[in-house]
Amino acid sequence: MISGPSGAGKSTVVFKAIEGRTDFCFSTSVTTRKPRPGEVDGREYFFIDRARYDEMVRQDELLEHAEYVSNGYGTPRAYVEQKLSEGMNVVLDIEIQGARQVREKMPDAVMIFVIPPSMEELRRRLVSRGTESLEVIEGRIRRAKQEYAEADFYDYLIVNDDADRAAADFAAIVRAEHLRAKDRLQLLNGGHL
Amino acid sequence: MISGPSGAGKSTVVFKAIEGRTDFCFSTSVTTRKPRPGEVDGREYFFIDRARYDEMVRQDELLEHAEYVSNGYGTPRAYVEQKLSEGMNVVLDIEIQGARQVREKMPDAVMIFVIPPSMEELRRRLVSRGTESLEVIEGRIRRAKQEYAEADFYDYLIVNDDADRAAADFAAIVRAEHLRAKDRLQLLNGGHL
Repeated sequence: MISGPSGAGKSTVVFKAIEGRTDFCFSTSVTTRKPRPGEVDGREYFFIDRARYDEMVRQDELLEHAEYVSNGYGTPRAYVEQKLSEGMNVVLDIEIQGARQVREKMPDAVMIFVIPPSMEELRRRLVSRGTESLEVIEGRIRRAKQEYAEADFYDYLIVNDDADRAAADFAAIVRAEHLRAKDRLQLLNGGHL
Repeated sequence: MISGPSGAGKSTVVFKAIEGRTDFCFSTSVTTRKPRPGEVDGREYFFIDRARYDEMVRQDELLEHAEYVSNGYGTPRAYVEQKLSEGMNVVLDIEIQGARQVREKMPDAVMIFVIPPSMEELRRRLVSRGTESLEVIEGRIRRAKQEYAEADFYDYLIVNDDADRAAADFAAIVRAEHLRAKDRLQLLNGGHL
Protein backbone atom coordinates (compact mmCIF):
# COMPACT_ATOMS: atom_id res chain seq x y z
CA MET A 1 0.00 0.00 0.00
CA ILE A 2 1.25 3.39 -0.90
CA SER A 3 -0.25 6.57 0.48
CA GLY A 4 0.68 10.20 0.76
CA PRO A 5 -0.58 13.66 0.06
CA SER A 6 -1.65 14.68 -3.41
CA GLY A 7 1.44 16.15 -5.03
CA ALA A 8 3.89 13.90 -3.18
CA GLY A 9 4.51 12.03 -6.42
CA LYS A 10 3.34 8.55 -5.38
CA SER A 11 2.50 7.45 -8.91
CA THR A 12 5.77 8.67 -10.37
CA VAL A 13 7.73 6.84 -7.71
CA VAL A 14 5.85 3.57 -8.18
CA PHE A 15 5.89 3.70 -11.98
CA LYS A 16 9.64 4.34 -11.99
CA ALA A 17 10.20 1.50 -9.55
CA ILE A 18 8.15 -1.10 -11.40
CA GLU A 19 9.10 -0.09 -14.95
CA GLY A 20 9.92 -3.18 -16.97
CA ARG A 21 9.03 -5.52 -14.13
CA THR A 22 6.43 -8.21 -14.63
CA ASP A 23 6.03 -9.09 -10.96
CA PHE A 24 3.98 -6.00 -10.11
CA CYS A 25 0.38 -5.09 -10.71
CA PHE A 26 -2.03 -2.52 -9.40
CA SER A 27 -5.14 -3.54 -7.59
CA THR A 28 -8.36 -2.88 -9.49
CA SER A 29 -11.20 -1.50 -7.41
CA VAL A 30 -14.90 -2.15 -7.67
CA THR A 31 -17.26 0.80 -7.94
CA THR A 32 -20.98 1.36 -8.20
CA ARG A 33 -20.55 4.44 -10.35
CA LYS A 34 -21.29 4.17 -14.05
CA PRO A 35 -18.37 3.77 -16.45
CA ARG A 36 -17.30 6.97 -18.20
CA PRO A 37 -16.73 6.99 -21.95
CA GLY A 38 -13.61 4.97 -22.71
CA GLU A 39 -13.49 3.17 -19.38
CA VAL A 40 -13.32 -0.61 -19.61
CA ASP A 41 -14.71 -3.00 -17.02
CA GLY A 42 -11.82 -4.68 -15.24
CA ARG A 43 -9.31 -2.04 -16.35
CA GLU A 44 -10.13 1.26 -14.62
CA TYR A 45 -12.62 -0.44 -12.30
CA PHE A 46 -14.82 -3.43 -11.96
CA PHE A 47 -18.22 -1.83 -12.46
CA ILE A 48 -20.88 -3.42 -10.29
CA ASP A 49 -24.37 -2.50 -9.17
CA ARG A 50 -25.33 -1.39 -5.70
CA ALA A 51 -26.91 -4.73 -4.77
CA ARG A 52 -23.70 -6.61 -5.56
CA TYR A 53 -21.61 -3.96 -3.79
CA ASP A 54 -23.70 -4.15 -0.64
CA GLU A 55 -23.42 -7.92 -0.76
CA MET A 56 -19.62 -7.71 -1.06
CA VAL A 57 -19.52 -5.43 1.99
CA ARG A 58 -21.77 -7.79 3.93
CA GLN A 59 -19.81 -10.89 2.94
CA ASP A 60 -16.47 -9.24 3.83
CA GLU A 61 -15.35 -9.52 0.21
CA LEU A 62 -13.77 -6.05 0.26
CA LEU A 63 -10.44 -5.34 1.95
CA GLU A 64 -11.56 -1.75 2.34
CA HIS A 65 -14.42 0.35 1.08
CA ALA A 66 -15.70 3.89 1.20
CA GLU A 67 -18.43 6.05 -0.28
CA TYR A 68 -17.76 9.10 -2.44
CA VAL A 69 -20.50 11.24 -3.97
CA SER A 70 -23.11 8.54 -3.36
CA ASN A 71 -21.03 5.84 -5.02
CA GLY A 72 -19.35 2.91 -3.36
CA TYR A 73 -15.71 2.04 -4.01
CA GLY A 74 -13.78 -0.89 -2.67
CA THR A 75 -10.81 -3.24 -3.04
CA PRO A 76 -11.91 -6.79 -3.85
CA ARG A 77 -10.17 -9.27 -1.61
CA ALA A 78 -10.45 -12.16 -4.10
CA TYR A 79 -8.73 -10.17 -6.84
CA VAL A 80 -5.84 -9.18 -4.60
CA GLU A 81 -5.43 -12.69 -3.20
CA GLN A 82 -5.50 -14.18 -6.69
CA LYS A 83 -2.70 -11.86 -7.85
CA LEU A 84 -0.67 -12.54 -4.71
CA SER A 85 -1.04 -16.28 -5.23
CA GLU A 86 0.37 -15.77 -8.74
CA GLY A 87 3.47 -14.28 -7.12
CA MET A 88 2.64 -10.69 -8.00
CA ASN A 89 3.38 -7.68 -5.86
CA VAL A 90 0.00 -5.99 -5.70
CA VAL A 91 0.22 -2.22 -5.33
CA LEU A 92 -2.67 -0.35 -3.72
CA ASP A 93 -2.56 3.41 -4.17
CA ILE A 94 -4.82 4.18 -1.27
CA GLU A 95 -5.65 6.84 1.28
CA ILE A 96 -5.00 6.47 4.96
CA GLN A 97 -8.44 5.34 6.08
CA GLY A 98 -8.50 2.65 3.41
CA ALA A 99 -4.97 1.57 4.29
CA ARG A 100 -6.02 1.20 7.90
CA GLN A 101 -8.90 -1.09 6.89
CA VAL A 102 -6.64 -3.23 4.69
CA ARG A 103 -4.04 -3.55 7.45
CA GLU A 104 -6.72 -4.97 9.75
CA LYS A 105 -7.70 -7.62 7.22
CA MET A 106 -4.20 -8.32 5.89
CA PRO A 107 -1.77 -7.71 8.75
CA ASP A 108 1.20 -8.59 6.52
CA ALA A 109 0.40 -5.91 3.97
CA VAL A 110 3.24 -3.40 3.78
CA MET A 111 2.40 0.28 4.23
CA ILE A 112 4.51 2.99 2.65
CA PHE A 113 3.88 6.70 3.10
CA VAL A 114 5.36 9.07 0.53
CA ILE A 115 5.91 12.72 1.37
CA PRO A 116 7.42 15.67 -0.46
CA PRO A 117 10.63 17.15 1.00
CA SER A 118 8.68 20.03 2.57
CA MET A 119 5.27 21.68 2.62
CA GLU A 120 6.76 24.57 0.63
CA GLU A 121 7.85 22.12 -2.06
CA LEU A 122 4.40 20.49 -2.01
CA ARG A 123 2.79 23.90 -2.56
CA ARG A 124 5.24 24.65 -5.36
CA ARG A 125 4.45 21.35 -7.10
CA LEU A 126 0.72 21.84 -6.79
CA VAL A 127 0.95 25.41 -8.12
CA SER A 128 3.17 24.36 -11.02
CA ARG A 129 0.56 21.85 -12.16
CA GLY A 130 -1.50 24.91 -13.03
CA THR A 131 -4.75 22.98 -12.78
CA GLU A 132 -6.10 24.10 -9.44
CA SER A 133 -7.06 27.35 -7.76
CA LEU A 134 -4.95 28.60 -4.86
CA GLU A 135 -7.91 27.91 -2.61
CA VAL A 136 -7.98 24.26 -3.63
CA ILE A 137 -4.22 24.06 -3.21
CA GLU A 138 -4.37 25.49 0.32
CA GLY A 139 -7.04 22.90 1.07
CA ARG A 140 -4.67 20.17 -0.12
CA ILE A 141 -1.90 21.53 2.10
CA ARG A 142 -4.19 21.52 5.11
CA ARG A 143 -5.26 17.99 4.27
CA ALA A 144 -1.63 16.90 3.89
CA LYS A 145 -0.89 18.17 7.40
CA GLN A 146 -3.83 16.16 8.73
CA GLU A 147 -2.58 13.09 6.90
CA TYR A 148 0.89 13.48 8.39
CA ALA A 149 -0.66 13.42 11.84
CA GLU A 150 -2.42 10.13 11.05
CA ALA A 151 0.44 8.39 9.23
CA ASP A 152 2.38 7.22 12.25
CA PHE A 153 1.20 3.64 11.84
CA TYR A 154 2.84 3.25 8.43
CA ASP A 155 5.77 0.88 8.12
CA TYR A 156 7.98 2.99 5.87
CA LEU A 157 8.37 6.63 5.03
CA ILE A 158 9.84 7.76 1.72
CA VAL A 159 10.78 11.39 1.15
CA ASN A 160 10.35 12.08 -2.54
CA ASP A 161 12.97 14.74 -3.07
CA ASP A 162 14.38 12.89 -6.07
CA ALA A 163 12.10 10.53 -7.95
CA ASP A 164 14.87 8.10 -8.94
CA ARG A 165 16.11 7.83 -5.39
CA ALA A 166 12.58 7.47 -4.05
CA ALA A 167 11.88 4.75 -6.63
CA ALA A 168 15.02 2.92 -5.51
CA ASP A 169 13.79 3.26 -1.92
CA PHE A 170 10.47 1.70 -2.93
CA ALA A 171 12.22 -1.15 -4.75
CA ALA A 172 14.50 -1.80 -1.76
CA ILE A 173 11.51 -2.01 0.58
CA VAL A 174 9.78 -4.54 -1.66
CA ARG A 175 12.97 -6.57 -2.02
CA ALA A 176 13.64 -6.55 1.73
CA GLU A 177 10.06 -7.50 2.58
CA HIS A 178 10.41 -10.61 0.40
CA LEU A 179 13.40 -11.63 2.54
CA ARG A 180 11.51 -11.60 5.84
CA ALA A 181 12.43 -14.70 7.79
CA LYS A 182 8.94 -15.26 9.14
CA ASP A 183 7.69 -15.87 5.59
CA ARG A 184 10.63 -18.11 4.67
CA LEU A 185 10.88 -20.49 7.59
CA GLN A 186 10.27 -23.39 5.22
CA LEU A 187 13.79 -22.70 3.97
CA LEU A 188 15.08 -23.47 7.46
CA ASN A 189 13.17 -26.67 8.09
CA GLY A 190 12.14 -27.97 4.71
CA GLY A 191 14.19 -28.83 1.68
CA HIS A 192 17.35 -27.52 3.27
CA LEU A 193 17.81 -30.33 5.76
CA MET B 1 23.85 -8.54 12.83
CA ILE B 2 24.65 -11.23 10.37
CA SER B 3 24.76 -14.89 11.27
CA GLY B 4 24.75 -18.19 9.49
CA PRO B 5 26.60 -21.46 9.28
CA SER B 6 30.28 -21.57 8.51
CA GLY B 7 30.50 -21.87 4.71
CA ALA B 8 27.33 -19.89 4.03
CA GLY B 9 29.47 -17.05 2.72
CA LYS B 10 28.49 -14.33 5.19
CA SER B 11 31.74 -12.38 4.83
CA THR B 12 31.69 -12.50 1.04
CA VAL B 13 28.13 -11.22 0.99
CA VAL B 14 28.80 -8.36 3.40
CA PHE B 15 32.09 -7.32 1.78
CA LYS B 16 30.46 -7.25 -1.65
CA ALA B 17 27.56 -5.23 -0.30
CA ILE B 18 29.65 -2.59 1.47
CA GLU B 19 32.46 -2.32 -1.05
CA GLY B 20 33.25 1.32 -1.65
CA ARG B 21 30.78 2.51 0.96
CA THR B 22 31.94 4.71 3.80
CA ASP B 23 28.79 4.35 5.88
CA PHE B 24 29.59 0.83 7.08
CA CYS B 25 31.98 -0.51 9.67
CA PHE B 26 32.45 -3.75 11.53
CA SER B 27 32.15 -3.92 15.25
CA THR B 28 35.43 -4.56 17.08
CA SER B 29 35.21 -6.98 19.98
CA VAL B 30 37.04 -6.97 23.27
CA THR B 31 38.93 -10.09 24.33
CA THR B 32 41.00 -11.22 27.27
CA ARG B 33 43.23 -13.39 25.13
CA LYS B 34 46.75 -12.16 24.36
CA PRO B 35 47.38 -10.53 20.99
CA ARG B 36 48.97 -12.80 18.39
CA PRO B 37 51.96 -11.59 16.39
CA GLY B 38 50.79 -8.91 13.99
CA GLU B 39 47.52 -8.20 15.74
CA VAL B 40 46.91 -4.56 16.62
CA ASP B 41 44.90 -3.36 19.59
CA GLY B 42 41.69 -1.78 18.30
CA ARG B 43 41.95 -3.46 14.90
CA GLU B 44 41.46 -7.21 15.33
CA TYR B 45 40.29 -6.77 18.92
CA PHE B 46 40.47 -4.47 21.86
CA PHE B 47 42.81 -6.46 24.11
CA ILE B 48 41.87 -6.10 27.76
CA ASP B 49 42.71 -7.93 30.96
CA ARG B 50 40.36 -10.18 32.86
CA ALA B 51 39.67 -7.62 35.59
CA ARG B 52 38.52 -5.04 33.05
CA TYR B 53 36.51 -7.66 31.17
CA ASP B 54 34.73 -8.81 34.32
CA GLU B 55 34.00 -5.19 35.14
CA MET B 56 32.52 -4.62 31.66
CA VAL B 57 30.27 -7.64 32.13
CA ARG B 58 29.20 -6.42 35.57
CA GLN B 59 28.57 -2.86 34.39
CA ASP B 60 26.55 -4.06 31.38
CA GLU B 61 29.09 -2.51 29.01
CA LEU B 62 28.96 -5.49 26.65
CA LEU B 63 26.07 -6.05 24.23
CA GLU B 64 26.93 -9.74 24.29
CA HIS B 65 29.74 -11.84 25.64
CA ALA B 66 30.90 -15.43 25.74
CA GLU B 67 33.84 -17.51 26.87
CA TYR B 68 35.96 -19.60 24.50
CA VAL B 69 38.96 -21.64 25.63
CA SER B 70 39.15 -19.78 28.93
CA ASN B 71 39.12 -16.37 27.27
CA GLY B 72 36.33 -13.83 27.34
CA TYR B 73 35.04 -12.16 24.19
CA GLY B 74 32.42 -9.45 23.94
CA THR B 75 30.93 -6.61 21.92
CA PRO B 76 31.48 -3.24 23.60
CA ARG B 77 28.27 -1.24 23.75
CA ALA B 78 30.03 2.14 23.83
CA TYR B 79 31.96 1.42 20.63
CA VAL B 80 28.85 0.35 18.75
CA GLU B 81 26.81 3.28 20.01
CA GLN B 82 29.57 5.72 19.11
CA LYS B 83 29.70 4.40 15.52
CA LEU B 84 25.90 4.46 15.24
CA SER B 85 25.85 8.07 16.48
CA GLU B 86 28.31 8.90 13.68
CA GLY B 87 25.73 7.59 11.20
CA MET B 88 27.54 4.35 10.50
CA ASN B 89 25.90 1.02 9.83
CA VAL B 90 27.66 -1.22 12.30
CA VAL B 91 27.93 -4.83 11.13
CA LEU B 92 28.23 -7.59 13.71
CA ASP B 93 29.27 -10.97 12.32
CA ILE B 94 27.98 -12.97 15.22
CA GLU B 95 26.65 -16.37 16.18
CA ILE B 96 23.11 -17.02 17.23
CA GLN B 97 23.54 -16.91 21.00
CA GLY B 98 25.37 -13.59 20.77
CA ALA B 99 22.76 -12.20 18.40
CA ARG B 100 20.06 -13.14 20.87
CA GLN B 101 21.86 -11.22 23.63
CA VAL B 102 22.30 -8.15 21.43
CA ARG B 103 18.65 -8.19 20.42
CA GLU B 104 17.67 -8.04 24.08
CA LYS B 105 19.82 -4.98 24.68
CA MET B 106 19.21 -3.30 21.33
CA PRO B 107 15.71 -4.27 20.21
CA ASP B 108 16.07 -2.24 17.00
CA ALA B 109 19.14 -4.14 15.85
CA VAL B 110 18.44 -5.90 12.56
CA MET B 111 19.11 -9.62 12.39
CA ILE B 112 19.98 -11.30 9.11
CA PHE B 113 20.58 -15.01 8.74
CA VAL B 114 22.53 -16.20 5.70
CA ILE B 115 22.22 -19.77 4.47
CA PRO B 116 23.65 -21.71 1.54
CA PRO B 117 21.17 -22.95 -1.07
CA SER B 118 21.26 -26.47 0.40
CA MET B 119 23.11 -28.66 2.87
CA GLU B 120 24.67 -30.50 -0.07
CA GLU B 121 26.03 -27.21 -1.38
CA LEU B 122 27.30 -26.32 2.09
CA ARG B 123 29.16 -29.65 2.25
CA ARG B 124 30.55 -29.09 -1.23
CA ARG B 125 31.83 -25.61 -0.28
CA LEU B 126 33.42 -26.84 2.93
CA VAL B 127 35.11 -29.74 1.12
CA SER B 128 36.38 -27.49 -1.67
CA ARG B 129 38.12 -25.27 0.88
CA GLY B 130 40.38 -28.24 1.39
CA THR B 131 41.38 -27.13 4.88
CA GLU B 132 39.31 -29.41 7.08
CA SER B 133 38.89 -33.12 7.61
CA LEU B 134 35.65 -34.80 6.59
CA GLU B 135 34.96 -35.35 10.26
CA VAL B 136 35.20 -31.63 11.01
CA ILE B 137 33.04 -30.88 7.99
CA GLU B 138 30.33 -33.30 9.12
CA GLY B 139 30.47 -31.57 12.51
CA ARG B 140 29.87 -28.23 10.80
CA ILE B 141 26.92 -29.67 8.89
CA ARG B 142 25.39 -30.99 12.12
CA ARG B 143 25.96 -27.62 13.73
CA ALA B 144 24.38 -25.83 10.77
CA LYS B 145 21.24 -27.93 11.19
CA GLN B 146 21.09 -26.99 14.86
CA GLU B 147 21.53 -23.33 13.96
CA TYR B 148 18.69 -23.50 11.45
CA ALA B 149 16.43 -24.77 14.20
CA GLU B 150 17.31 -21.76 16.38
CA ALA B 151 17.23 -19.09 13.69
CA ASP B 152 13.49 -18.54 13.58
CA PHE B 153 13.73 -15.26 15.50
CA TYR B 154 15.84 -13.59 12.82
CA ASP B 155 14.28 -10.74 10.87
CA TYR B 156 15.58 -11.63 7.43
CA LEU B 157 16.79 -14.72 5.66
CA ILE B 158 19.16 -14.51 2.70
CA VAL B 159 19.88 -17.56 0.58
CA ASN B 160 23.40 -17.18 -0.74
CA ASP B 161 23.12 -19.05 -4.02
CA ASP B 162 24.69 -16.16 -5.90
CA ALA B 163 26.97 -13.80 -3.99
CA ASP B 164 26.05 -10.73 -6.08
CA ARG B 165 22.35 -11.32 -5.61
CA ALA B 166 22.81 -12.02 -1.92
CA ALA B 167 24.86 -8.83 -1.55
CA ALA B 168 22.08 -6.87 -3.26
CA ASP B 169 19.62 -8.50 -0.84
CA PHE B 170 21.75 -7.34 2.07
CA ALA B 171 21.98 -3.80 0.68
CA ALA B 172 18.21 -3.68 0.12
CA ILE B 173 17.57 -4.73 3.72
CA VAL B 174 19.85 -2.00 5.06
CA ARG B 175 18.28 0.59 2.76
CA ALA B 176 14.74 -0.43 3.70
CA GLU B 177 15.51 -0.45 7.42
CA HIS B 178 16.64 3.17 7.17
CA LEU B 179 13.21 4.03 5.76
CA ARG B 180 11.25 2.67 8.74
CA ALA B 181 8.57 5.16 9.65
CA LYS B 182 8.94 4.64 13.38
CA ASP B 183 12.48 6.04 13.20
CA ARG B 184 11.49 8.95 10.97
CA LEU B 185 8.42 10.36 12.64
CA GLN B 186 10.21 13.66 13.10
CA LEU B 187 9.75 14.05 9.33
CA LEU B 188 6.01 13.98 9.88
CA ASN B 189 5.80 16.43 12.74
CA GLY B 190 8.97 18.45 12.66
CA GLY B 191 10.45 20.54 9.88
CA HIS B 192 7.83 19.44 7.41
CA LEU B 193 4.95 21.40 8.89
